Amino acid sequence: MDVQDLLEKLLRGDVPALARAISIVENERPGFETLLSGAHRHLGRARRIGITGPPGAGKSTLTERLVTAWRSRGVTVAVVAVDPTSPFTGGALLGDRIRMEAVALDRGVYIRSMASRGSLGGLATSTREVCDLLDAFGFDRILVETVGVGQSELDIARMADSTMLVVVPEGGDGIQALKSGVMEAADLLVVNKADRPGADRMRKELEGALQIRRGNAGIRVTAHHGSLLKVQGPPPGADDEGWQPPVLPTSAVKGEGIAEVVDALDRHWDALTAGGELVARRRRRVHAMTREVADRALRRWLWQESDADARLIARVDEVMTGRTSPYELAAELVDGFRQASI
Amino acid sequence: MDVQDLLEKLLRGDVPALARAISIVENERPGFETLLSGAHRHLGRARRIGITGPPGAGKSTLTERLVTAWRSRGVTVAVVAVDPTSPFTGGALLGDRIRMEAVALDRGVYIRSMASRGSLGGLATSTREVCDLLDAFGFDRILVETVGVGQSELDIARMADSTMLVVVPEGGDGIQALKSGVMEAADLLVVNKADRPGADRMRKELEGALQIRRGNAGIRVTAHHGSLLKVQGPPPGADDEGWQPPVLPTSAVKGEGIAEVVDALDRHWDALTAGGELVARRRRRVHAMTREVADRALRRWLWQESDADARLIARVDEVMTGRTSPYELAAELVDGFRQASI
Repeated sequence: MDVQDLLEKLLRGDVPALARAISIVENERPGFETLLSGAHRHLGRARRIGITGPPGAGKSTLTERLVTAWRSRGVTVAVVAVDPTSPFTGGALLGDRIRMEAVALDRGVYIRSMASRGSLGGLATSTREVCDLLDAFGFDRILVETVGVGQSELDIARMADSTMLVVVPEGGDGIQALKSGVMEAADLLVVNKADRPGADRMRKELEGALQIRRGNAGIRVTAHHGSLLKVQGPPPGADDEGWQPPVLPTSAVKGEGIAEVVDALDRHWDALTAGGELVARRRRRVHAMTREVADRALRRWLWQESDADARLIARVDEVMTGRTSPYELAAELVDGFRQASI
Repeated sequence: MDVQDLLEKLLRGDVPALARAISIVENERPGFETLLSGAHRHLGRARRIGITGPPGAGKSTLTERLVTAWRSRGVTVAVVAVDPTSPFTGGALLGDRIRMEAVALDRGVYIRSMASRGSLGGLATSTREVCDLLDAFGFDRILVETVGVGQSELDIARMADSTMLVVVPEGGDGIQALKSGVMEAADLLVVNKADRPGADRMRKELEGALQIRRGNAGIRVTAHHGSLLKVQGPPPGADDEGWQPPVLPTSAVKGEGIAEVVDALDRHWDALTAGGELVARRRRRVHAMTREVADRALRRWLWQESDADARLIARVDEVMTGRTSPYELAAELVDGFRQASI
């Protein structure tokens, strides 16, 4: 099928076209960038919400409850469940997908699992691209749920408009959350399983930590790339002025506290749009995204369109025996590539 | 100081030179690749051991116990503690470092925390490069401890000669470990806090899962890059023939089961060297490493040695307003760069 044709069907709300487009993008099949480029002009309607937190915190159940709550308000939702560790097994989230079958019969809900398949751009990039398709399709909310709280999960969470950190009372999660610094990325904190002992202590710990964070806001590092600050509108920490991340107790299993989370997400959206922070976040996303797409093009050029990998494989033994080093060999490969591109 | 001079001091066992070299490599300061290239000819003596597992599993305590056990056997040890989530806070592992102060006074032990600082090569690459310096310096064992079980942690763990997965009895870790597929990467499984209820059930669950893994060994995906299989000596799954990952109960706090872990690591090393798997693993590492170094050179070339980022920043607004897309802009940047490199 023609990519332009597929895009038009997707924009008209054709679900099989959406599924097909996602598969093309996820597997970086021919035309995937044309598809995404075309979708770009139809973005911006969906609110993107990232859900992160340690394994076992109940993120999937919370996601299911949020979906139900939005549906009862007439809001359409796409869920992207991401498992950065599943290149090993594949389809690791199938269980979650099956569990959500009830809502999956609803046309206003779309659920998709993503796993790293060694894509050239990495999982965070693929996930963001799938979200772009869902946004262009017309979903009101896109929930991105990740397993764990590692760097990959944070990269994914940071693409969202609102990022939610879910923890549970037991297991020293409070301290771990502080330690790993994920709190810095959270716009909302949820203490799930709040009927368990220690929930109140956890909430207080988190609120205390948020105060420390506010105290540090002025000296907080807001971006990885030095140049990024140049494209930011407001100064570092500006998002802290208008928005104080709330700590919300929930019991996702019992359906308690869900309405409060939905309300807090709406309030955060209002704060984002009122304060100009939404534009600032989306500028940062565009900047990072364009760099990623360029990096991927560069890698594709080197490894797929040149003979660099064949030359590397032929010379691995020289590195093994110490006749050359990976650095000398890599420099030779890149130099040869630069020469050849003349 | 001259890089060659620094390298010679490091190779003679000068600790301040080692610290300085690590800092140069970690921050990708001028000459860092020359340093690593020079170190490459002195590698291969150290056994590299990765320790991964969920937060709160007791990895730091286990690490400390292993260090003590090795020291009592006259073996020198370097510990690299990696927190992939700490770009946000920096120095998140300082607590662990302080806790290990007792062993840190011993010259046969070297401890270093690493955090992602947005390096061009990524944290896994930086960590591997710091391990190279520690290997060249002459440590007998290099323990790489990661926080969490995400993709970044797995990337780090996979560089090791032996990878150890640490879990605890409670909290559904057994199921989570299966779900995330980290088990596939583990050469040793440790059930820590084995004096707690459920330890035996956890051990049996893990052993059951290992049997499933063996059953699947023939169809297991062993590499991300299609080309990688070509440089592998033995066929996929060959490492499973000679080595069955043991499940070992420990109580790191009480110091129980530590000798058994040390023995199992020795047995794994013997299996690696006897079966040719060590060479196969190191070939894969060299291949992946050389690709990473080349990718980094390419990114440096684009973002630091060309005007691509300035041109990108000047045009972010065009993407924001939909006049162009990140894909069109990235393609233009890369094309301009290809033209300019003629």
